[in-house]
Amino acid sequence: MEEIKTVADQALFTVNNLWMMLGAALVFIMHLGFASLESGLTRAKNTVNVLYKNTLTPIIGLLTYAICGFNLMYPGADYAGAFFGFAGFGIGTDAAGVTSAYNPGYTYWTDFIFQAMFAATCATIVSGAVAERIKLGAYVVFSVFFVGVCYPILGMWKWGNGWLNTMETPFYDFAGSTLVHSVGGWGALAGVILLGPRIGKYIDGKVNAIPGHSMTSAVIGTFLLWLGWFGFNGASVLSADPALVSLVFVTTSLAAAAAGFSAAVTIQLVTKKNDLSMVLNGILAGLVAITAGADQMSPMDSIFIGLIAGVMVVFAVFMFDKLKLDDPVGALSVHLVCGIFGTLAVGLFGAKAGIPQLVSQLIGIGSYAVGAFAFTFIAFFILKKTMGIRVSEEEETEGLDTYEHGMNAYEI
Amino acid sequence: MEEIKTVADQALFTVNNLWMMLGAALVFIMHLGFASLESGLTRAKNTVNVLYKNTLTPIIGLLTYAICGFNLMYPGADYAGAFFGFAGFGIGTDAAGVTSAYNPGYTYWTDFIFQAMFAATCATIVSGAVAERIKLGAYVVFSVFFVGVCYPILGMWKWGNGWLNTMETPFYDFAGSTLVHSVGGWGALAGVILLGPRIGKYIDGKVNAIPGHSMTSAVIGTFLLWLGWFGFNGASVLSADPALVSLVFVTTSLAAAAAGFSAAVTIQLVTKKNDLSMVLNGILAGLVAITAGADQMSPMDSIFIGLIAGVMVVFAVFMFDKLKLDDPVGALSVHLVCGIFGTLAVGLFGAKAGIPQLVSQLIGIGSYAVGAFAFTFIAFFILKKTMGIRVSEEEETEGLDTYEHGMNAYEI
Amino acid sequence: MEEIKTVADQALFTVNNLWMMLGAALVFIMHLGFASLESGLTRAKNTVNVLYKNTLTPIIGLLTYAICGFNLMYPGADYAGAFFGFAGFGIGTDAAGVTSAYNPGYTYWTDFIFQAMFAATCATIVSGAVAERIKLGAYVVFSVFFVGVCYPILGMWKWGNGWLNTMETPFYDFAGSTLVHSVGGWGALAGVILLGPRIGKYIDGKVNAIPGHSMTSAVIGTFLLWLGWFGFNGASVLSADPALVSLVFVTTSLAAAAAGFSAAVTIQLVTKKNDLSMVLNGILAGLVAITAGADQMSPMDSIFIGLIAGVMVVFAVFMFDKLKLDDPVGALSVHLVCGIFGTLAVGLFGAKAGIPQLVSQLIGIGSYAVGAFAFTFIAFFILKKTMGIRVSEEEETEGLDTYEHGMNAYEI
Repeated sequence: MEEIKTVADQALFTVNNLWMMLGAALVFIMHLGFASLESGLTRAKNTVNVLYKNTLTPIIGLLTYAICGFNLMYPGADYAGAFFGFAGFGIGTDAAGVTSAYNPGYTYWTDFIFQAMFAATCATIVSGAVAERIKLGAYVVFSVFFVGVCYPILGMWKWGNGWLNTMETPFYDFAGSTLVHSVGGWGALAGVILLGPRIGKYIDGKVNAIPGHSMTSAVIGTFLLWLGWFGFNGASVLSADPALVSLVFVTTSLAAAAAGFSAAVTIQLVTKKNDLSMVLNGILAGLVAITAGADQMSPMDSIFIGLIAGVMVVFAVFMFDKLKLDDPVGALSVHLVCGIFGTLAVGLFGAKAGIPQLVSQLIGIGSYAVGAFAFTFIAFFILKKTMGIRVSEEEETEGLDTYEHGMNAYEI
Repeated sequence: MEEIKTVADQALFTVNNLWMMLGAALVFIMHLGFASLESGLTRAKNTVNVLYKNTLTPIIGLLTYAICGFNLMYPGADYAGAFFGFAGFGIGTDAAGVTSAYNPGYTYWTDFIFQAMFAATCATIVSGAVAERIKLGAYVVFSVFFVGVCYPILGMWKWGNGWLNTMETPFYDFAGSTLVHSVGGWGALAGVILLGPRIGKYIDGKVNAIPGHSMTSAVIGTFLLWLGWFGFNGASVLSADPALVSLVFVTTSLAAAAAGFSAAVTIQLVTKKNDLSMVLNGILAGLVAITAGADQMSPMDSIFIGLIAGVMVVFAVFMFDKLKLDDPVGALSVHLVCGIFGTLAVGLFGAKAGIPQLVSQLIGIGSYAVGAFAFTFIAFFILKKTMGIRVSEEEETEGLDTYEHGMNAYEI
Repeated sequence: MEEIKTVADQALFTVNNLWMMLGAALVFIMHLGFASLESGLTRAKNTVNVLYKNTLTPIIGLLTYAICGFNLMYPGADYAGAFFGFAGFGIGTDAAGVTSAYNPGYTYWTDFIFQAMFAATCATIVSGAVAERIKLGAYVVFSVFFVGVCYPILGMWKWGNGWLNTMETPFYDFAGSTLVHSVGGWGALAGVILLGPRIGKYIDGKVNAIPGHSMTSAVIGTFLLWLGWFGFNGASVLSADPALVSLVFVTTSLAAAAAGFSAAVTIQLVTKKNDLSMVLNGILAGLVAITAGADQMSPMDSIFIGLIAGVMVVFAVFMFDKLKLDDPVGALSVHLVCGIFGTLAVGLFGAKAGIPQLVSQLIGIGSYAVGAFAFTFIAFFILKKTMGIRVSEEEETEGLDTYEHGMNAYEI
């Protein structure tokens, strides 16, 4: 009977761990999603540059996470303080680490790879907002510190059992509307402010739309992001629990669909155009917004959240243009604005709704705003004063591909 | 011991449910496959329009399925009649719905999301056939009714335990050669007839091929569809049963390969060209044809079915052109013709072959022909007489992207 | 209690088999990865031709593997000799073949489909190296024999329990650095030698870089290959064993990341360019190099192996150009050179490191060098003397798409 128990336990552990590994693979494919989306929504003369940055991003993410990020974000009970903890450089485990003794849902290695894939998504969000004018070297240095130090320390506050997790009513962020998307969004905002707008975007108070070079790429990117989100949210259950994961699949999809729909309608009413890029950003807005509470919402809640996010993203795009904050791919509107909204939504809709939760959500949002914006603004500021962050006017006009990469993306 | 039993049961339920959720994700990616294939096989001036429709399609599918489609297609024993049943608006379940008490293979939420992803594929088939000339608004209205009402009611006849499932020898359609592909194909036929051919396709009795704008997109689309079909067919087993699902993987792949091969040879013999788009349609033809009996066939059967489908799709393309039924992407040849053939094949090959089954297959094919064609013809007809279904000659000539979307797909 | 045991066993078998099927699907998507990468790195005038070959490759792989390949590679104890065994034409099994009696990790059908998807990757490697000048017919004939006969016979030496597996210290090749990648690489070398360089590549002792036509395609291809490698390596564990598969995910990803990083740095130091295509080849180099020992390495080992592979691939590209071996996509540098290095690395790093293993690795590498190069050189030589392997100068200059396919890849 002991043997049967072992087989049964092993089977359950194996399926849980399998789902978590697949979750890592799905989040990995989001990096291709971001690469496609961001290159599609920017100009052909900068495509190699955008793709280069997006190819380096998961590389930087994986390596820095192995060196220090994982142990900064999940220092464990022995090392974790309220705001900071560090379990040392490098990764590794003993025999127990690859059994359910480590966690009933996954092995140590699975934990690392899933979290490492997550980590890099944060930098990707910045990458899109600062595209078409940032120096490659500055982006690389920024990303190393952002993914290797900033993201994991901030993440530890909640997911590493830091102070936001030990409050009386803990701050709640299921899969990272705030910890990933808003943090990336604050970094994007810092970059956008310090870089300034692209040449020609705002002239005499008028906004000149700079169309992307390939809607085909943009659509591929968006669908891959949606696909990857099944892992991003679904594997944030931290096991293959049928009830929870299947609910998360439903809430995630319905929020995406509802937001795509409401964004399509909103932009149609405002501009009379059937604006494909806005529908794509609507879908992403819904995905970001549901992320904080994907396991807490009913299908109807998730549709509401999606509908609101889809409207919000349209007006956010207009607002940032009014503020002359030039964000080529709409990352601020999608990840920052809807990340904040989605985090608030946990206090407004679903199983946790209520004043105490809402207060905790506001505390969390505010803390990450301060922490992430301060860190990234200082980082970009130091880079600006030292190596410089913006390419020359000549390079920007002719395209970064020629200057930084010596090649064109297309020879058709 | 009770505890061990619970763990063992839970492990089996968890892996079954995991596969079904992954099946949903795989079917989801078919929507990107269709978007890529259909945009690749049409002209650059209509690319935004094609992508826009294909992005809206899963959105419409998910939302309508949540509102009424799921409860029309699977009304359950209390509501199902022979031809119609409706369990009410909206979705939701109790605690038992997320356990194996609902179904040993999946939770209620998994059931919904898998079926919802399926539902939308039906409309996508129409989308390709009517491309480059249909009004966007007309397509949207059509899709809402097609996916939200027509597809689920017709699907209920068989999968919702309607009259075709309760015949003495039940009609058999494993994963939808008829219920999804032919139904989509009949809708496509109705649309093609009522729209008429694109300007310039048929002049003085001569067929002018209108080449697509990107074979890269077409290939990406076809491979993603093949990938997605592992979920479409594989998860139609409705559990992760090792014997059945692995057989379905084999029959599905061999049919696709055989059909790609025979289409390549056939078109080479007929036109002396190595026609890539025909090989792609061959692969899809094999996939559609094996779908009705993927769990009933031996590998050798599946190769036969594929070989026949690959030849059939080539001549079907010629036939529809002879009939001046202009189908830019070959959807009629792939989904309607091979959907019918695949459904018949269940009576001709494999475990269920025999006269009684063949008769039931004919009854099923005929019923869906009448049901789907009648519904979609009337729907398109009403739209034609009211809002109109075809864009102006000027718009068609200049491209739908400029008129309906105010943007180009590419700026290279 | 017997019933509980059955459920527990069935659950474990089901999850193992599920992972192996998903592995097959992931390896399948590598074919789209190769198609995208190879077409991206070659010229637009040959894009249809490259895509056509890459579409045919999995078709040929699946069909020949069903006809004879599987039974040549895994003939089973009754048929296997030291160097050759054949269990007969066709595939099929009895009732036991779809239970854990066949293997605790997978059914017979899963075994076939996983191995069949693997098989075809071998030919794809050749496809890239001979691109832009090989006759389509010659490539097809070559591929049929390469995948249907050469690859399985050579593979049997190790994975089919042939002589390399029964040596005192067995040769070790976890997932195919040698059996798949080097074998493909040797075939590529034979093809490149017998075909000669593309017109204009080497003029007056100078190397003229011939840029590819779409870095977007190349990036999509590389990311899809990385994704697919989770199945290629991860499912080579032959079960869903949590400890091993999760380690393999980590070593595979870290090697890819480290190699992408070191390739980026190396090419920057040498050419002062941020060369995207070299970073992509670096990633692939790391993936190929870790493949032989992905289950034997610590994370630190895998980073070392990746760092070395990334440097190696850069200098290998220069070396092959110095030797006037024209390889449009860098397949020789990635698959042959790093395949050899990765196989050696099993004797140098990780759990199996040591002189006896190193000797066995050298024996294995040498045997496959002789076997694969001899077979493929003779095959290409016979083709050259009979049907011819190189297109006419006129066709090469104008592009293979017009001549062999009568169409262009793009109409933008």
